[in-house]
Amino acid sequence: MVLVRRNTTNLRITPSSQLLNSSTINMKLWQKNAAVQADIERFTVGRDREMDLLLAPYDILGSLAHIEMLCSIGLLEAAELATLQAALKRLYAQAQAGNFEIEAGVEDVHSQVELMLTRELGDLGKKIHSGRSRNDQVLVDLRLFFRAEIEDLARRMERLFDTLQSLSEQYKEVHLPGYTHLQVAMVSSFGLWLGAFAESLVDDLRHLRSAYESINQNPLGSAAGYGSSFPLNRRMTTDLLGFADLNYNVVHAQMGRGKSELFLAFALAGLGQTLGKLSMDLVLYLNQNFAFLSFPEELTTGSSIMPHKKNPDVFELTRAKSNQLVALPTQVSALIGNLPSGYHRDFQLLKENMFPALEMAKDCLDMLSFTLPQMRPKTEILQDEKYQYLYSVEEVNRLVLEGVPFRDAYKQVGLAIEAGQFNPDKNLNHTHEGSLGNLCTAEIKNKWTGVWAGFGFEKVAEKLGGLVQ
Amino acid sequence: MVLVRRNTTNLRITPSSQLLNSSTINMKLWQKNAAVQADIERFTVGRDREMDLLLAPYDILGSLAHIEMLCSIGLLEAAELATLQAALKRLYAQAQAGNFEIEAGVEDVHSQVELMLTRELGDLGKKIHSGRSRNDQVLVDLRLFFRAEIEDLARRMERLFDTLQSLSEQYKEVHLPGYTHLQVAMVSSFGLWLGAFAESLVDDLRHLRSAYESINQNPLGSAAGYGSSFPLNRRMTTDLLGFADLNYNVVHAQMGRGKSELFLAFALAGLGQTLGKLSMDLVLYLNQNFAFLSFPEELTTGSSIMPHKKNPDVFELTRAKSNQLVALPTQVSALIGNLPSGYHRDFQLLKENMFPALEMAKDCLDMLSFTLPQMRPKTEILQDEKYQYLYSVEEVNRLVLEGVPFRDAYKQVGLAIEAGQFNPDKNLNHTHEGSLGNLCTAEIKNKWTGVWAGFGFEKVAEKLGGLVQ
Amino acid sequence: MVLVRRNTTNLRITPSSQLLNSSTINMKLWQKNAAVQADIERFTVGRDREMDLLLAPYDILGSLAHIEMLCSIGLLEAAELATLQAALKRLYAQAQAGNFEIEAGVEDVHSQVELMLTRELGDLGKKIHSGRSRNDQVLVDLRLFFRAEIEDLARRMERLFDTLQSLSEQYKEVHLPGYTHLQVAMVSSFGLWLGAFAESLVDDLRHLRSAYESINQNPLGSAAGYGSSFPLNRRMTTDLLGFADLNYNVVHAQMGRGKSELFLAFALAGLGQTLGKLSMDLVLYLNQNFAFLSFPEELTTGSSIMPHKKNPDVFELTRAKSNQLVALPTQVSALIGNLPSGYHRDFQLLKENMFPALEMAKDCLDMLSFTLPQMRPKTEILQDEKYQYLYSVEEVNRLVLEGVPFRDAYKQVGLAIEAGQFNPDKNLNHTHEGSLGNLCTAEIKNKWTGVWAGFGFEKVAEKLGGLVQ
Amino acid sequence: MVLVRRNTTNLRITPSSQLLNSSTINMKLWQKNAAVQADIERFTVGRDREMDLLLAPYDILGSLAHIEMLCSIGLLEAAELATLQAALKRLYAQAQAGNFEIEAGVEDVHSQVELMLTRELGDLGKKIHSGRSRNDQVLVDLRLFFRAEIEDLARRMERLFDTLQSLSEQYKEVHLPGYTHLQVAMVSSFGLWLGAFAESLVDDLRHLRSAYESINQNPLGSAAGYGSSFPLNRRMTTDLLGFADLNYNVVHAQMGRGKSELFLAFALAGLGQTLGKLSMDLVLYLNQNFAFLSFPEELTTGSSIMPHKKNPDVFELTRAKSNQLVALPTQVSALIGNLPSGYHRDFQLLKENMFPALEMAKDCLDMLSFTLPQMRPKTEILQDEKYQYLYSVEEVNRLVLEGVPFRDAYKQVGLAIEAGQFNPDKNLNHTHEGSLGNLCTAEIKNKWTGVWAGFGFEKVAEKLGGLVQ
Repeated sequence: MVLVRRNTTNLRITPSSQLLNSSTINMKLWQKNAAVQADIERFTVGRDREMDLLLAPYDILGSLAHIEMLCSIGLLEAAELATLQAALKRLYAQAQAGNFEIEAGVEDVHSQVELMLTRELGDLGKKIHSGRSRNDQVLVDLRLFFRAEIEDLARRMERLFDTLQSLSEQYKEVHLPGYTHLQVAMVSSFGLWLGAFAESLVDDLRHLRSAYESINQNPLGSAAGYGSSFPLNRRMTTDLLGFADLNYNVVHAQMGRGKSELFLAFALAGLGQTLGKLSMDLVLYLNQNFAFLSFPEELTTGSSIMPHKKNPDVFELTRAKSNQLVALPTQVSALIGNLPSGYHRDFQLLKENMFPALEMAKDCLDMLSFTLPQMRPKTEILQDEKYQYLYSVEEVNRLVLEGVPFRDAYKQVGLAIEAGQFNPDKNLNHTHEGSLGNLCTAEIKNKWTGVWAGFGFEKVAEKLGGLVQ
Repeated sequence: MVLVRRNTTNLRITPSSQLLNSSTINMKLWQKNAAVQADIERFTVGRDREMDLLLAPYDILGSLAHIEMLCSIGLLEAAELATLQAALKRLYAQAQAGNFEIEAGVEDVHSQVELMLTRELGDLGKKIHSGRSRNDQVLVDLRLFFRAEIEDLARRMERLFDTLQSLSEQYKEVHLPGYTHLQVAMVSSFGLWLGAFAESLVDDLRHLRSAYESINQNPLGSAAGYGSSFPLNRRMTTDLLGFADLNYNVVHAQMGRGKSELFLAFALAGLGQTLGKLSMDLVLYLNQNFAFLSFPEELTTGSSIMPHKKNPDVFELTRAKSNQLVALPTQVSALIGNLPSGYHRDFQLLKENMFPALEMAKDCLDMLSFTLPQMRPKTEILQDEKYQYLYSVEEVNRLVLEGVPFRDAYKQVGLAIEAGQFNPDKNLNHTHEGSLGNLCTAEIKNKWTGVWAGFGFEKVAEKLGGLVQ
Repeated sequence: MVLVRRNTTNLRITPSSQLLNSSTINMKLWQKNAAVQADIERFTVGRDREMDLLLAPYDILGSLAHIEMLCSIGLLEAAELATLQAALKRLYAQAQAGNFEIEAGVEDVHSQVELMLTRELGDLGKKIHSGRSRNDQVLVDLRLFFRAEIEDLARRMERLFDTLQSLSEQYKEVHLPGYTHLQVAMVSSFGLWLGAFAESLVDDLRHLRSAYESINQNPLGSAAGYGSSFPLNRRMTTDLLGFADLNYNVVHAQMGRGKSELFLAFALAGLGQTLGKLSMDLVLYLNQNFAFLSFPEELTTGSSIMPHKKNPDVFELTRAKSNQLVALPTQVSALIGNLPSGYHRDFQLLKENMFPALEMAKDCLDMLSFTLPQMRPKTEILQDEKYQYLYSVEEVNRLVLEGVPFRDAYKQVGLAIEAGQFNPDKNLNHTHEGSLGNLCTAEIKNKWTGVWAGFGFEKVAEKLGGLVQ
Repeated sequence: MVLVRRNTTNLRITPSSQLLNSSTINMKLWQKNAAVQADIERFTVGRDREMDLLLAPYDILGSLAHIEMLCSIGLLEAAELATLQAALKRLYAQAQAGNFEIEAGVEDVHSQVELMLTRELGDLGKKIHSGRSRNDQVLVDLRLFFRAEIEDLARRMERLFDTLQSLSEQYKEVHLPGYTHLQVAMVSSFGLWLGAFAESLVDDLRHLRSAYESINQNPLGSAAGYGSSFPLNRRMTTDLLGFADLNYNVVHAQMGRGKSELFLAFALAGLGQTLGKLSMDLVLYLNQNFAFLSFPEELTTGSSIMPHKKNPDVFELTRAKSNQLVALPTQVSALIGNLPSGYHRDFQLLKENMFPALEMAKDCLDMLSFTLPQMRPKTEILQDEKYQYLYSVEEVNRLVLEGVPFRDAYKQVGLAIEAGQFNPDKNLNHTHEGSLGNLCTAEIKNKWTGVWAGFGFEKVAEKLGGLVQ
């Protein structure tokens, strides 16, 4: 279960007009006046306030863990802790309800939370910052956010996985030509084709889990990347926030900025590769020359000048969005490449790459899970004369099983084809694991379950629940 | 002069909440109800309405040229033309004033313009679409938009170029260590260093011009990518829109979608490479171990926990944004790679890559043009003992000019260094072209002017002016 | 004409076993012995000796120009010059004859040339190095090499361009379905399809020319990147080597390392995009579901288990190699990203990226120029029932030209299609520029010629000829 | 233990002159003669024979498992099996001894093995191919090869990990300034800095393991990607070859071509990111402005014109090679992007990307493991006046621990700095996990051990040993 619900529709988002009106803004730069500072701020803050809204609940969770620890080492009194906890839990509820806002003139989510606390509690509000830097604060926010996003993503992947497996079973008898070199090659089936993408998702899930394991380590306490002279109890915050382990070395913890994003980008790119290939197949199979399947009209798009068109826009866009995911690692690498160790402001832009990419990935998964069950495979595809050679290997194998040496069997079939006398027996008997006649759907599901178990989502939910209740 | 002014601050932009609330949207996909169609539409339309706002004036310009041509070939009567022209010019003025809006439920800018025309003029409004497809309509919109953006970009590059040249002259006497392998190597100067980036911008401008030349060709009339059975006069629209030439072959015109963006992405990536390196140098030179220059306090940023810090956030962010430009070609290539010829809906996402990248490039240029003149180079840098070996090559050369063979001179200086008896003469006399003592600022400006002349911006302004006056 | 002929088959290349036996080599690293230095050298030299062989003639040309200039400023006596010129011209002839070798233990081509000169001429041989650094020496070698490679590439592009144009004319009457969204859309033709790639090559040539213009500037005299205290005459070497202009600023000249490669990589990637798309189309059209064309059997490949297969391996590999070119800018950017100004040893690896990529590009061009004329387009493709809707737009347009309002025409045709009563007139009359009936082959050739003229290859050949005769 | 030893120095490698002399080759294409077929073959075979040499032992192992299974299902008689096993084991020994060769005119390793068998055994030699396609044969070869390479890589990573940990402990008392925004920020240490890269390698190992898990699944039996009508026992070959599981679905198994490489490329790119950052730090710290450490002279390189230079070429090249690894995923993605499911010949080029990249990664690891222990950190770095502000945060924290509110403490220290009266206490007392005073070296080693255990290398060695003994 995803503990932190985002009710983003209700969030009052500052319009991302930064994106579009920067040329107007920049004009001001040339007027020598008090606006200079404001312009520099606008340039440096960029889209951060928009992005940071998504971090609000995680920032509050991080603070709840941090102050509990501060109290345990004597840097906060019990009464102070209680007051701060109550206030933070109210803010958390507000964020969950979608009523959290980053005010104009406030730079980021950390400042906004602190501002709200000090408005309410005065100087006590500032104490949540003791023993932290904004560097480890944003690190922990991002880890908690990515962790939740990965869980969300994994659940949507599971939905698509189950969809594919179920369709694979449903259509296991419907044959399809299989291609190599994009040349008609051997008999395949809808069951085989759809089941393949299910099994591919297992590998993608495994890589997502690997990114998750790197991310699910606690950077809190690394401060600006060189630790703190306060006697912080980092194991305690690790436990409170449900992390599986610590980023021990504080310089390493800071180097995780960029590296975490890179690992996650790899996982998304791997997924993108799978979904892009599935989408490409769908577009191809919807093409009239293949015509292996169709979708209800409401899932296709018409043309403004060609009355007969039924365009597969949905799958072209899942393909395109998947390919954007494939490019993500290059975007991340370009940002962080050749930077020496230590924090750099460049890292801020990682949010603008990663956050929309996560949405894109989820969008593609959902759209495929939604549309695929409405697929209408064409039956009797292989009746078409152009597919008769599909059976040539079957025929060769049949002869071999009857005792004809392979080379002779191959020649015999080849001559029959050339002479136009190739009349294959179209009954197939594929029995080995993973073949037409033996899809191993249960075994593949088992693989999925095995990888899934490694995440340990339940523990996280329980721990975070403990912080806010 | 950029004819089409964009007053984007006034544009009533539909908030790009698509970016953030898609998970909520997708929830709906699972409710079997009338919302299906709406959800598919939202997925396929994506951020297009936001992006298309920027295309509005260009879409209208394209229509103005198209209908004048339609009239010339008898597909529109003179009176119809006059009526449509008047209405379109009003819409154009509205877009220029920042009052153009894409209404809820309207898919793109083309539909919005047509809708507004038909509201006013009934069926006549639809006639602007004759002999066109949305495919060549958006192609021509993008070409006109990119052309204007390139001009805007080129002008901002020129501002930075002039700034760098002027600072190069101003600081030509201030010496700096030059590095190879990041090791102290030879004497350089602020004049040399800043002037180098000016000359680099000439190469970047040349590549931008090359992209411009590919883009400044008329695709209108290619319809869906296979031409039209109407007797269109494509040379006429070419002339009316100020294009330098036609994309003749209609299949080629359509293949320009993606390829134009790729060429422009290359130009932006090349520019990003230059600006990123300049930013990296600035960050390094602001570092306390180098300490070659400083900036006024209002251009740097403080730290939340370290009272002494003056962080170069501005230049870290020009570096980061420059590096995002460097990654742009990969994003474009990932989208269009291995797609067969013909239009694909995937191309729509190119806007989401290219439009913000153009803003990013302009932002970086402006920020550097604004901040660099406020640079305060440190003088007497080379007095520091660690730089004395800078003069070793000078010393070797001096001996060679006095007749000592190079190998002996090299040995002699090497021995003096080892013996701690190296006391170089610090008077330099570099005279050749492009050296410390001979920056060739005028020659480099000449190169700039030569490349600039090839754009022909004036003709474009004149032609577009003719369409809307 | 490419002046510098490479007879690479005869070059005695040191086997690139570095690639494969490095694990064995590295073993040695752990043995503490005299081999340390050798191992470090092997690691740092890498594949440079293999790559540098290609630079040999250009290194000699650079030296010939440099010494003539040294003599003109009094750093070399006339007799010394004559002796050196004679020796260098012999070496040049040797390199052209394919008998140049980099000996074991010699690090690079510059050292090899110097070694051979000093063996013959004693200390005089070393004088060719006066006023130069290896940094500007390799810069000028690379510029001369890339310049020659670009010319070679351009000529091979021209061969493919001419091939495409000629085939486009030959098959202009053979119709083909045109696709949008990979859905059957409108009538196209082999003439249109092939001609489109010819016109695309014009844009690619323009970008190659832009890279050429950046590269065709003289970096010699920039020494280690900070110029020289010798009174070098850089305009003289510029003229002798046939460069169009100087890299004036010496820091800029050095920054060209990496940037030149990036610009060239962009040009190759743009070309790769074109050739990749053409290859993808070919693979698709060879597929049995499309079956638009065939090739003679000797250009396709059989299958080890499927007797009927005729695999389009050649075009799959031109596609794959083209896509490797598309990835090239990322390889270059990854190497040079975020490096401050000044030389870095990292740049050495650029050769390993660029040199094989140039061969790859030429290979693909040649293979396509060779195979395309053997293409056998299928005629009467559009007789197949599934293509009848191709004519729907034609039919709508015909009605419009007869006076029926577009919307009514569109409806009328749509209804006919639904009712199964759509019997289109299959005579087409496309007349506008670049359409089915008017391919504008001559106009596109004109464009090519215009871009070609900008290179000025003749001047280069003449100048280099002057140096070595 | 890596079972398959490669004695590559002894392998008689066909010189990779394909790389360099292709222009000569292509010339032939234009001569209409019998050479056509040869040229097509050369173009399509490319560097495959060179690459395939590395696959030889794995190809033989795959065949040994396959024939044992064929016998178990009655497709091979026991006597035939014994004869084939004996011959294959001899070939295996030959390959291990470095005496395996791919003969001129033989296309790939599979053909070479079959050729050698049939020379010896006649038609029986061909039976090893029954129930297989070259598609699943090369798939299994690559899996076995990558599996061994990953193990090799992991062991070299471990050596570097141990080196870093040991140096981290050795130099834990030697302080270093820590930077944020490349500005002097807080006290760090060699212990902290070196230990950080050790912990980073744990994350890299985890991702390598994830790639390993995807790769360590048996594709054999998938034939051309659509399975076989033979009653293959795929679980048996899975067990014999020591695979952890099967790629069940045969279409999925085939889709693993490209996807396996992508996952491995991600792992290498992640590692490249770590090693590149370490190298960048080293180059920076060797720079005279930082001067934090030095290396013995034999590990640095001199300059041809500057007698005082000691260039860090080794670390510039580990940086450059690391960055080449970072670009690897883009190369792989460019090759496989948007290809529909099924085998494509494009996949062949993946070898040319992956094989040298693996060598590059191992080279960088070894070079760093070899050089780092020779590092000589400078002591007393922080005595330099420019680092005194490093202690400002310490001072603020000290005041806070004494009861001064943070904001007041921050102000007080800030004022002291401005007044030039900041005299910090330089005794540090960092105690929390992963801080200066508490490096957690053992805990980080524990993490390493935990990840390592998941590979299960022993089982693989045991199984392969069983096949060949």
